Amino acid sequence: MSKAFNIHQDNLEGRYVQMDEVEWVDFPAALCEGPIKWKLLNVSPELGSWTAIFDCPAETSFNRHIHIGPGEYFLTKGRMDVRGGDNEGGSTAIAPGYGYEPCNARHDKTYFPEDSEFYMNFVGPLNFIDEEGTTIALVTWQDAQGAWEAS
Amino acid sequence: MSKAFNIHQDNLEGRYVQMDEVEWVDFPAALCEGPIKWKLLNVSPELGSWTAIFDCPAETSFNRHIHIGPGEYFLTKGRMDVRGGDNEGGSTAIAPGYGYEPCNARHDKTYFPEDSEFYMNFVGPLNFIDEEGTTIALVTWQDAQGAWEAS
Amino acid sequence: MSKAFNIHQDNLEGRYVQMDEVEWVDFPAALCEGPIKWKLLNVSPELGSWTAIFDCPAETSFNRHIHIGPGEYFLTKGRMDVRGGDNEGGSTAIAPGYGYEPCNARHDKTYFPEDSEFYMNFVGPLNFIDEEGTTIALVTWQDAQGAWEAS
Amino acid sequence: MSKAFNIHQDNLEGRYVQMDEVEWVDFPAALCEGPIKWKLLNVSPELGSWTAIFDCPAETSFNRHIHIGPGEYFLTKGRMDVRGGDNEGGSTAIAPGYGYEPCNARHDKTYFPEDSEFYMNFVGPLNFIDEEGTTIALVTWQDAQGAWEAS
Repeated sequence: MSKAFNIHQDNLEGRYVQMDEVEWVDFPAALCEGPIKWKLLNVSPELGSWTAIFDCPAETSFNRHIHIGPGEYFLTKGRMDVRGGDNEGGSTAIAPGYGYEPCNARHDKTYFPEDSEFYMNFVGPLNFIDEEGTTIALVTWQDAQGAWEAS
Repeated sequence: MSKAFNIHQDNLEGRYVQMDEVEWVDFPAALCEGPIKWKLLNVSPELGSWTAIFDCPAETSFNRHIHIGPGEYFLTKGRMDVRGGDNEGGSTAIAPGYGYEPCNARHDKTYFPEDSEFYMNFVGPLNFIDEEGTTIALVTWQDAQGAWEAS
Repeated sequence: MSKAFNIHQDNLEGRYVQMDEVEWVDFPAALCEGPIKWKLLNVSPELGSWTAIFDCPAETSFNRHIHIGPGEYFLTKGRMDVRGGDNEGGSTAIAPGYGYEPCNARHDKTYFPEDSEFYMNFVGPLNFIDEEGTTIALVTWQDAQGAWEAS
Repeated sequence: MSKAFNIHQDNLEGRYVQMDEVEWVDFPAALCEGPIKWKLLNVSPELGSWTAIFDCPAETSFNRHIHIGPGEYFLTKGRMDVRGGDNEGGSTAIAPGYGYEPCNARHDKTYFPEDSEFYMNFVGPLNFIDEEGTTIALVTWQDAQGAWEAS
């Protein structure tokens, strides 16, 4: 932190990812059940948002988490049961489907009954929690970037 | 605006759009060349962001505009020449491609040489301009919603 | 825009402005009536937000504008009539007062009946308009920075 | 979450708080040392941002925390030592001072050597942590609102 008075900021530059030239890598095993893979596409450090695409084979799921900030998904393939799915009081998305998950939405189980794929923009971190709501792992854009770069 | 001191706000609810049950409609003719169609998927009035998917037949284009806020696209089909494309100093996206267009990015011409489709999240409005940069139409989330509901 | 796959982003650094060591300068005369002065404190290029403090002598006012994004003010001195003030269907803020102006709020006249000062955070630009709503000047964070650096 | 296709959203309304008509209340004792008081001024549920003003008597401090999202403060009175202050590698703000704390900034100790007051906008939660960085309490806009309403 500088006391010098120099607030000048430059415009950001555009970014592009040729998605089919990036290989799928394993999503961290501590955060999901089954062989979910992902590609991290962008991180935006000022606001703390990030964007990724996920490959979720049949019968995989993400562990319990809270969206600390709004998230928007585009389900391009398959089926995603959110909060138990339509049959258990939650919601089931079917490709092609768009969803808006609000700030502080809690997802106790996000389950893929068939081979699925979705693209998602996140603002802020994912707060992976136990059943009582205690934080197990708070995954910020920096953690997402760290996991991606380690793989 | 109330002076009563009542800042209480409720959490937002999730939203879902079954995309294949929504019909494509014409994108406003004043903002593009050729028969571009779209589906508006979400508007977020607090921050002023919005999300849509666009169907762009070969040889269509969007008119000159500036992104007043960051935008992220996922090109799911075809090819998109941004700022003249790779051959003229700009950039060419090829599906599947991801792009981040920063706040205040100017797109003099966004052209689709072949049948294309892309999904995009916008923060803030699109400022459609003439060659000198004078505003012709400032399309906010409310204008997008109005155009969508009118169609 | 690079096609190389390198999304790595660094964390931002903190910034500090010793406000009493920065001199007040004239706010652009085209955007207000009377000798309003300001200090630009920050610009955030990713989201397009910016922060400033304004010194508004008695009987000054800002020209008609729309907030393209939410704005929050802290009136530290004086009185601010928004949209005609309490007597004409608008609202009057009295120091110390806090206000939240939502995305797309239109302020036909913002008038200071006595010597006033306020600090404000803006997300996105101010759209200065004529009576019909046509854009006269769209003042983004870059324009704010440009005006500040020119003074 | 509804599957009905109804994305219509209304514009938000303005909000105003006459700050001197709101009483100071104790800030949660688990999150600070000494009798810090606060007034919550706004919460914005879509993005998860919130705004408050804090009264910090001499020798009080906030416990160790990380800003999960950018924060901007306006120190209106006194002195605030961030990360040990100028003498220990951190930074010291002196009123009137403005500071921008970036997303994921870690503040091991925020100490007020004299009676101080500051106004602050937060995007996202504060993550109160122990020395190893393990989350003790993740204070979102909803938790801030809950603490405020309970007092």
